[in-house]
Amino acid sequence: MTNATLTISSKNYSSWSLRGWLLTKFSGLPFEEFVMPVDDPGARAELLLLSPSILVPCLVHDGIKVWDTLAIAEYLNEVRPKAGLLPADRRMRAHCRSICGEMHSGFASLRSALPMNIKAHFPNFTIWARAQTDIERITAIWLECLKQYDGPYLFGALSAADAMFAPVVTRFVTYDVKLEPEIVAYSQRILALPEMQRWIADAQQEVEEIDELDAEF
Amino acid sequence: MTNATLTISSKNYSSWSLRGWLLTKFSGLPFEEFVMPVDDPGARAELLLLSPSILVPCLVHDGIKVWDTLAIAEYLNEVRPKAGLLPADRRMRAHCRSICGEMHSGFASLRSALPMNIKAHFPNFTIWARAQTDIERITAIWLECLKQYDGPYLFGALSAADAMFAPVVTRFVTYDVKLEPEIVAYSQRILALPEMQRWIADAQQEVEEIDELDAEF
Repeated sequence: MTNATLTISSKNYSSWSLRGWLLTKFSGLPFEEFVMPVDDPGARAELLLLSPSILVPCLVHDGIKVWDTLAIAEYLNEVRPKAGLLPADRRMRAHCRSICGEMHSGFASLRSALPMNIKAHFPNFTIWARAQTDIERITAIWLECLKQYDGPYLFGALSAADAMFAPVVTRFVTYDVKLEPEIVAYSQRILALPEMQRWIADAQQEVEEIDELDAEF
Repeated sequence: MTNATLTISSKNYSSWSLRGWLLTKFSGLPFEEFVMPVDDPGARAELLLLSPSILVPCLVHDGIKVWDTLAIAEYLNEVRPKAGLLPADRRMRAHCRSICGEMHSGFASLRSALPMNIKAHFPNFTIWARAQTDIERITAIWLECLKQYDGPYLFGALSAADAMFAPVVTRFVTYDVKLEPEIVAYSQRILALPEMQRWIADAQQEVEEIDELDAEF
């Protein structure tokens, strides 16, 4: 019996849903997931980024509602501190929060040019220069962390940062992005996580197709 | 003698700088501010939103570097817990973080159509429909907080949320946005804060003009 519910939208298309879901899985908090059908107007608006109020993912726990991925990460870190969603060391924690924040508010070019679409594969996809700049910043962030904290994940053990960047890992696969070996190895470790395997399997089985998103390519 | 430095860019144009600066002021942590000259390429890129790595504002304290506004808020809440940047009650804290997160990752239409520009004033400015949707969501967030926690600020006392939304208050003035009385009253309370008065006075004295931003209007 759990008293936590996580509402998400499409597992194939919604990068924010993947982040919120991974954060909750990593925290160890038992929860029921509720997937909004894609024909729900709220889910469609969120997927098409038309909605100013992205209220998915939304975690409800003990009657407390949290509806932003970073807020969910901080909330889960409070109620499940032993899960280590945020590093125990203050300096590492500040670093972790800084890069989670960069992912949260930035990389608009990557988001619009390479939207998450787990089922799709575009070999030799041509990457727009601004999206390439985003990719370079993201891989620089990862390399700095992997070098500084010695892996296997961004801050050694799994943390909120790996959840925040996991949708980027799937985009690198979908759009056939050419990457250096350390980045490929890290991406493979993320994709091999049982939580990611489960999410990807569910995404593969989604029947809905969002034509408007495809039109952006 | 302080061991904290906050690097910001333009006081007239940089909404992220205003957020980071207010958060640090509200925390009570003594700090030296360093304003990057607008002809610095990093500052220009940040102001024009071209940079994928918005590393301003950047707080350095005790040798620890924090470069995202929400990360700065969480860091300051840890080192200055008595300042109450985040509400003490868990439910209110989750609410506060959720709306700070919405401001941090969302409202792209408002940002691009109504960029912060404290020195300017555009009476009867025509607001694009998508920006209007953002304005309606933001004012709904404020009204819900003011009603639920009884003011005078979003969570009763001043919190990180007031800092996160303060640039929106200045935009409402700059673009002559028509608002309901409760929103006007809240905006006036924010504008009357001594920290805001100081920031606005500094912004008025900035000599640099960013033509590219003006071209967006």
